[in-house]
Amino acid sequence: MAPKNKIALGIDIGGTKISMACVIDGEITGSILSRKTPCDSNEILNYVLEGIETLNYDFNINVIGIATAGAVNKENTRVVGSTGNLPTGYSDIDFKEEIENKFKIKTLVENDANAAAYAEFKAGAAIGHMNTITVTLGTGVGGGIIVDGKLVRGKMGAGAEVGHMPLSWEKKRKCTCGDWDCWEAYASGTGYRATAREMAAKIPLELRTGILTDKDITQLTTHDIIAGLNQGDEFCRQVHDAWIEFVLMGLISLTNIFDPDSIVLSGGMAKFVDFEDLNKRLDARCHIAKTKIIHAKAENNAGILGGAMLALEKFC
Amino acid sequence: MAPKNKIALGIDIGGTKISMACVIDGEITGSILSRKTPCDSNEILNYVLEGIETLNYDFNINVIGIATAGAVNKENTRVVGSTGNLPTGYSDIDFKEEIENKFKIKTLVENDANAAAYAEFKAGAAIGHMNTITVTLGTGVGGGIIVDGKLVRGKMGAGAEVGHMPLSWEKKRKCTCGDWDCWEAYASGTGYRATAREMAAKIPLELRTGILTDKDITQLTTHDIIAGLNQGDEFCRQVHDAWIEFVLMGLISLTNIFDPDSIVLSGGMAKFVDFEDLNKRLDARCHIAKTKIIHAKAENNAGILGGAMLALEKFC
Repeated sequence: MAPKNKIALGIDIGGTKISMACVIDGEITGSILSRKTPCDSNEILNYVLEGIETLNYDFNINVIGIATAGAVNKENTRVVGSTGNLPTGYSDIDFKEEIENKFKIKTLVENDANAAAYAEFKAGAAIGHMNTITVTLGTGVGGGIIVDGKLVRGKMGAGAEVGHMPLSWEKKRKCTCGDWDCWEAYASGTGYRATAREMAAKIPLELRTGILTDKDITQLTTHDIIAGLNQGDEFCRQVHDAWIEFVLMGLISLTNIFDPDSIVLSGGMAKFVDFEDLNKRLDARCHIAKTKIIHAKAENNAGILGGAMLALEKFC
Repeated sequence: MAPKNKIALGIDIGGTKISMACVIDGEITGSILSRKTPCDSNEILNYVLEGIETLNYDFNINVIGIATAGAVNKENTRVVGSTGNLPTGYSDIDFKEEIENKFKIKTLVENDANAAAYAEFKAGAAIGHMNTITVTLGTGVGGGIIVDGKLVRGKMGAGAEVGHMPLSWEKKRKCTCGDWDCWEAYASGTGYRATAREMAAKIPLELRTGILTDKDITQLTTHDIIAGLNQGDEFCRQVHDAWIEFVLMGLISLTNIFDPDSIVLSGGMAKFVDFEDLNKRLDARCHIAKTKIIHAKAENNAGILGGAMLALEKFC
């Protein structure tokens, strides 16, 4: 358990927004500062430093944890390599040194998917689950893995990339990572849309009914399918079912590899999951280990909470 | 590092044979006692107890580690559930209690695939690799996983079943576990043979040349294919290549999930792997984490060594 009464600042830096808040006893306290992520890396650093100054004035912060998009080094001191949707120069920022020099407050940096898993474990849906995996089903598929209460980070901190398990040897769909048929290419929101368009393309024009009537199928969206699903559209049901089967494949692998207490699903696509149905399907297909699939709780604040709890764990 | 000069007895109980020997400083010392596994579970217990008595007379054993086929409970005290190729009643034997009562020597029980991974880590091909996975390619596909120097066992000790990651959603091949298209169904020796027979069946009778000439393809064996491969037979090359691609899929998943220092391949099928070629293929397909695939060293004595090293680690 994290030390009582210590105050940790959690900072979440994503491609879309930056947010930060103080955390005491596993809960956010006071205001959440938040803004759209600037396009300039210096601006990001300045916003972070100003935010710390503001919140430290009110709270007298003990430790700081940053949850960031992109890969983080094994020592949890800095971002390494490319970070995709963050501006050029971002990975050159040495947050730990900048912050520790200026405020004399111990700081760590962690990948946001790892931080999210830690947030669910310490303050979310998986409290007390010493073996738990958080899978983020969003634009991509991310993961954070807890084994015996500790994050699995690998030799360089590049582990827990659960989105990149191949689901087929037939090279059917290219993945953003450069390989083929990764779980992410099918189980993500992007994958959902791709499946819908592929399945629609297989139906001859004259047989396209329901939501497909007079539809430009190259423009089909996840939203179209979910809306149709709620109206009982048969095509949408088939697309959704195919997606659930793809989601299931990765969950079966993770269950057999980790024998976890739980797998937490978070991210925008997780809200389209019928958890009761998914648990039944998983149970029917796992014959060695069993687990429970649950919905994330920390969700939007997972980066703040996870960063803060990791900093408390490390420094207090 | 394991404590110096302590003497551990390692006992390996498999479906085919039981073997045991003393281990000092990571090496087997003195004789290896070994016999075919009896069909009666009481006989197994008696053989183990007699073996301990014999070896203890010579060596004054400090601790005992048993590596056994089948699932072991989280506390490493006993076999749980069914054990497939071991006799009825085997899982009722309480080795720890029987041995500790009789000899007053601390004893632990561990699953043989986990013990093999620990043997490679402490005394085999993966010494110093704090994150390493040992995959056994035999009749089935087994696994043992080391993260930050510790075995990944899961909530009930049923983890590391890496053979049961699904490789396809098309329900093409049933797995022994009851699910479909597991890695084991394709990457194991049994899977190799099944692939050979399937691929042969797709070739029309009149076009079957090389090793397939006048061959009853329902009787094709792994041995036939390996022999043909060494003679440059084209069909055998294709079967082998398909197998390598299947092996590769699981290795890609494990690399992205664990970012390990190494993945060790052991078991009967590992000797048919061209490690240089496999490493090149893996490197070309892993874009996030990288690893090195290496051949097992502890191999035949992995159970003895792993059991012994785990007992030293736990009790000394």
